[in-house]
Amino acid sequence: MKLYEQLADSIAKSIQQGTLCRGDKLPSVRHTSFSRKVSTSTVLEAYYLLEARGLITARERSGYFVTSGGISIPSSPEPAMQADPELTRVDVSELVFQVLQSIRVKNIVPLGSAFPSPLLFPRASLARTMASSIQTMDPWSSVDTLSTGDANLRRQIALRYMIDGLHIAADEIIVTNGALEALNLCLMAVTRPGDTVLIESPTFYAALQSIERIGLRAVEVPSHPKDGIDLEAMERAIERHRPQACWLMTNFQNPLGSLLSAEKKQALVALITKHQVPLIEDDVYSELYFGEKRPMPAKAFDTEGLVMHCSSFSKCLAPGYRVGWVAPGRYAQSVERLKLTTTISASAPAQITLGRYLQKGGYDKHLRNLRHTLLVNQIKFVEAIERYFPQGTCLTAPQGGYFLWIKLPDGVDALKLHQLAAAQGISIAPGPIFSAQRSFTDYIRLNYGHLWDARIEASLATLGKLVSNLMPQ
Amino acid sequence: MKLYEQLADSIAKSIQQGTLCRGDKLPSVRHTSFSRKVSTSTVLEAYYLLEARGLITARERSGYFVTSGGISIPSSPEPAMQADPELTRVDVSELVFQVLQSIRVKNIVPLGSAFPSPLLFPRASLARTMASSIQTMDPWSSVDTLSTGDANLRRQIALRYMIDGLHIAADEIIVTNGALEALNLCLMAVTRPGDTVLIESPTFYAALQSIERIGLRAVEVPSHPKDGIDLEAMERAIERHRPQACWLMTNFQNPLGSLLSAEKKQALVALITKHQVPLIEDDVYSELYFGEKRPMPAKAFDTEGLVMHCSSFSKCLAPGYRVGWVAPGRYAQSVERLKLTTTISASAPAQITLGRYLQKGGYDKHLRNLRHTLLVNQIKFVEAIERYFPQGTCLTAPQGGYFLWIKLPDGVDALKLHQLAAAQGISIAPGPIFSAQRSFTDYIRLNYGHLWDARIEASLATLGKLVSNLMPQ
Repeated sequence: MKLYEQLADSIAKSIQQGTLCRGDKLPSVRHTSFSRKVSTSTVLEAYYLLEARGLITARERSGYFVTSGGISIPSSPEPAMQADPELTRVDVSELVFQVLQSIRVKNIVPLGSAFPSPLLFPRASLARTMASSIQTMDPWSSVDTLSTGDANLRRQIALRYMIDGLHIAADEIIVTNGALEALNLCLMAVTRPGDTVLIESPTFYAALQSIERIGLRAVEVPSHPKDGIDLEAMERAIERHRPQACWLMTNFQNPLGSLLSAEKKQALVALITKHQVPLIEDDVYSELYFGEKRPMPAKAFDTEGLVMHCSSFSKCLAPGYRVGWVAPGRYAQSVERLKLTTTISASAPAQITLGRYLQKGGYDKHLRNLRHTLLVNQIKFVEAIERYFPQGTCLTAPQGGYFLWIKLPDGVDALKLHQLAAAQGISIAPGPIFSAQRSFTDYIRLNYGHLWDARIEASLATLGKLVSNLMPQ
Repeated sequence: MKLYEQLADSIAKSIQQGTLCRGDKLPSVRHTSFSRKVSTSTVLEAYYLLEARGLITARERSGYFVTSGGISIPSSPEPAMQADPELTRVDVSELVFQVLQSIRVKNIVPLGSAFPSPLLFPRASLARTMASSIQTMDPWSSVDTLSTGDANLRRQIALRYMIDGLHIAADEIIVTNGALEALNLCLMAVTRPGDTVLIESPTFYAALQSIERIGLRAVEVPSHPKDGIDLEAMERAIERHRPQACWLMTNFQNPLGSLLSAEKKQALVALITKHQVPLIEDDVYSELYFGEKRPMPAKAFDTEGLVMHCSSFSKCLAPGYRVGWVAPGRYAQSVERLKLTTTISASAPAQITLGRYLQKGGYDKHLRNLRHTLLVNQIKFVEAIERYFPQGTCLTAPQGGYFLWIKLPDGVDALKLHQLAAAQGISIAPGPIFSAQRSFTDYIRLNYGHLWDARIEASLATLGKLVSNLMPQ
């Protein structure tokens, strides 16, 4: 056994024995090198090994943190693989509205919310930027930003991609009213009523609602909580149903939290390129990674302009500003024209403010803080679920984002749980709203993007009790 | 002849002789009463009579202005009435995009623009309001304003209606990304692909583009430059084609500038109520009236919730903020849900800012100035057209808004004129983009909502020369 393996095993033991707990920061590489009397490169190798084993995670400029160890809660089961996914007429929107409406209540504990807490964002700094931006705004910008958006904002977005090694021209980027508009414009650009769209199962309910609204049919392909969509099932579905578009989330999927590896993204793009099916990529969570660096989108592997890449600032910087964007590849003209004939452009003050904010450079610091809060929250949530939920509960802790996709014990009705929880002032997102077939009847999605406090812990305890009561005798 | 008629005739003579010119302010009622030695009520009666004859116009708190007299330019011809309007598959979007694209050029003289000059808006005051609003914004408002919009803004909009005697509950109002989104949501709420929509001819090209995008068919009903749509032809079209919706502009229609009288609006609502066809009312220009008070929308006569009333701040206060609204009557739930699944909500900072701005009360003063500028501009434009355009040119000066709909001499090709003008750095809006049938080949729309200067006058002179050159030999 090599020296770094010995060191890794020794640290792993400390984690298993509870000396190092989830959320704890590991000693710095320099400190460990000194205390264990090994070279810094040995320490680094040991840390990498522990990371590969999923026991610790690196957080940019903050060091390494324990992510696992001592968890008694089992991983989510493999999804039941359908050999041949069937076409489904989508008819779930009404259910989604009912569920969302019932939890739009003041002061509810927002575990069912789709947004992180607004308290996690740099509101004061954005406000200062907005105040100065608006006072010096070129009056003609209200006309010039029509359609594709503020030139500086688009340049700043392109610049961030470039720094990560992804080349998206500022000219390709179209600013939208949040990612949802971007996704809808993409869907409208490549489909007509009656067409078929390939989606993941489970999938974000807004995708189902868009598909239903436009009068499309869905093919649901199973997706795994850890590494995302099953590419083999996806290829079979493409061959059988010839969808006009695929709509996927490649990074920290909502609701699963799954993350496609770079290799898998490459294979995904090869697949859609082989079949010449456009891929609508919903990538709103990639800045919320807990690993070493932001995972690349599938767009990074696209050479033919088939990937329509969508993202926004709503989940990581400025909820309520309603500023998102799309890099629609070869469909740019269609998307731009659809935008012009539906909402013309996104709000100019919001665009100009975000452009200036990115330019002045506090964004990365904010993101580091946000990611740290979310990671710590996830650990607390998982511990509380372990403590309060009955046996038979499973989950896979995601490597980014702020959602936990939880399998309840067999037979527990998530819609009933949602009703009982709402009556106690707690919102959750029940599994069936994430599926055209209303499957996932014993799954729920919890949002851990809110500040941890006694009220949230009490809510999780209440939820655990409700789940226990709902278990079949 | 009564005393007030004598007085009116005497003033009319001064106008005809050129003593009083268009744009001149009449002496105040008190001053005229003193100088002519008649009672103030006689002066008022005389002014009312002159107003009824179209020679002068009252401007709230500013007095009376000469609007007419000495104009040699004839009124627009009556529209050619089709006995039975035909269904049309709409296929004009590409032409519209080509025209719009060709005039999206820096420094072009923007006579073809759909927006007034951004220099006419209270930018500094809005900027101050935004700076203070954003700094005190409730962080949760980014979540609370989802969907229907900021509560204060909706209340302020309802309040303005109430002051004008129109009762629209704040709860009915849904804030949108400009009026265009409102109109599109309404159209989606009441139609499905293949359905038929009744529109005016000519009509705003964005309506044609929306109809085309959704896959609807259009029935075009003739509309007159002065008093708008022909209700008899409209009823025949409804009976024959059973449209699922009507989409009209009741106040200062784009491009005509036509204004439906209150009686005609009442008849319009009676007509759509009789046939139970929802009316999508595009009312973005009503604040830009030159008469005594804001003309009411058709919504004011609606008792069954069939009128879906849409408006915005883009043309009269804050272009680029992208804040509009809709009061969708009985279709409120459908519209709200469509909004949630397409763009979620309008930008929160823009909404909050406009709510506060309305609340603090500089809006009416700004509107008075804006209306005055537009009226004076209209007069200068009409005079210049009279001077520079060849005989055979006709127009009807509208009583509000900022568009002139100009009939060129027979046989002058508006699309050719558009190309020649663009080559000289002047944009215009050619007639065929306002019609599903690409009619109005010898009409153009000019925007007089830009600050009058030598450059604009020179552009009108150039246009006049181009028109002359295009006249058939």
